[in-house]
Amino acid sequence: MLRVVVCVSGGGTNLQAILDAIENGNITNTKIEMVISNNPGAYALERAKNAGVEALCMSPKNYESREAFHQAFCKKMEDVNPDLIVLAGFLVNIPKEMVAAFPNRILNIHPSLIPSFCGVGYYGLKVHEGVLSRGAKVTGATVHFVDEGTDTGPILLQKAVEVQSGDTPKVLQQRVMEQAEWIILPKAIDAIANNRVEFVDGIARVIEA
Amino acid sequence: MLRVVVCVSGGGTNLQAILDAIENGNITNTKIEMVISNNPGAYALERAKNAGVEALCMSPKNYESREAFHQAFCKKMEDVNPDLIVLAGFLVNIPKEMVAAFPNRILNIHPSLIPSFCGVGYYGLKVHEGVLSRGAKVTGATVHFVDEGTDTGPILLQKAVEVQSGDTPKVLQQRVMEQAEWIILPKAIDAIANNRVEFVDGIARVIEA
Repeated sequence: MLRVVVCVSGGGTNLQAILDAIENGNITNTKIEMVISNNPGAYALERAKNAGVEALCMSPKNYESREAFHQAFCKKMEDVNPDLIVLAGFLVNIPKEMVAAFPNRILNIHPSLIPSFCGVGYYGLKVHEGVLSRGAKVTGATVHFVDEGTDTGPILLQKAVEVQSGDTPKVLQQRVMEQAEWIILPKAIDAIANNRVEFVDGIARVIEA
Repeated sequence: MLRVVVCVSGGGTNLQAILDAIENGNITNTKIEMVISNNPGAYALERAKNAGVEALCMSPKNYESREAFHQAFCKKMEDVNPDLIVLAGFLVNIPKEMVAAFPNRILNIHPSLIPSFCGVGYYGLKVHEGVLSRGAKVTGATVHFVDEGTDTGPILLQKAVEVQSGDTPKVLQQRVMEQAEWIILPKAIDAIANNRVEFVDGIARVIEA
């Protein structure tokens, strides 16, 4: 049984996709141990409670310094010691010590086809604004393992989504969530839970069931 | 009738896709005025002759300097004065004066989803090597207008292609050609020939028929 902690900052629609996939059997051998939000108002915390999952808020505002928050956050993760940490719209930089403590055990979802529109400064709507201002006609989402860089870790899954005429950043964001993120994030977790992830020369891939 | 010059350096499979599309009516209102290759051995020149299209070789080796070649090449284009210049696997940098002389009238096909795996150094197999070494799971092709940068001009069409387990650069290159390049390049030319290209704030797009 894969023990997972999901880290969130906002509405938690990716968390909901994971919870639904566990409920309907698209993710097997997986238990969400805890949901952690840095934002006390995150609706994701309600979603966790509604699903009977422990919901914890750790706000940087409750700590003396960013460093103190990072330390407490790392300590919490090491105490829970999950098999996998899933960053599902988590707008906090992951401390390097935590990356080192969980090698290839932290998964992130990014709302573009990495290496396009990723890296420092590309988060949330800024990603989709970038896509539209470049005039790209195809975008998508990427599930990748987290390394010490920003969106530089091994790519596990990607799915393309068409940009359409008249798209606004919000419209495009919603389409990328519906047609890519909510599909590939559960698929990635199920693959990890069922030992269907292969690493060869630093390249990760899902072995189809 | 859109008068087109196609510039090639190699086998000319994209040229063939264009010729076939004209033949079978997928491209209308278009005449290939001339095919130009910088490489005397390019099989594309045979393809042109077989289709009854004028085939011209302009090799840099026949000129005193790169500058003299560029001047002759520009002069030739200005003499023919096509409505559209299509770079279909043309491994020659387009002189800035030519870009200035044909604003948004030079079209290029690039074998990736720009802005990924493009720019200086990314051509031919190097593009697909880049995709595979990054472990990307989705790639594709892009048709864009040529500006003064390398692969920086307005994107007109893109199409995604899946990377598959076991792909080599050559296998991936072939799939990107078959599933993307040979489809979107004729589609782009047909759209231009039939006034179905719109520019808004520097963003180009095809108005679907």
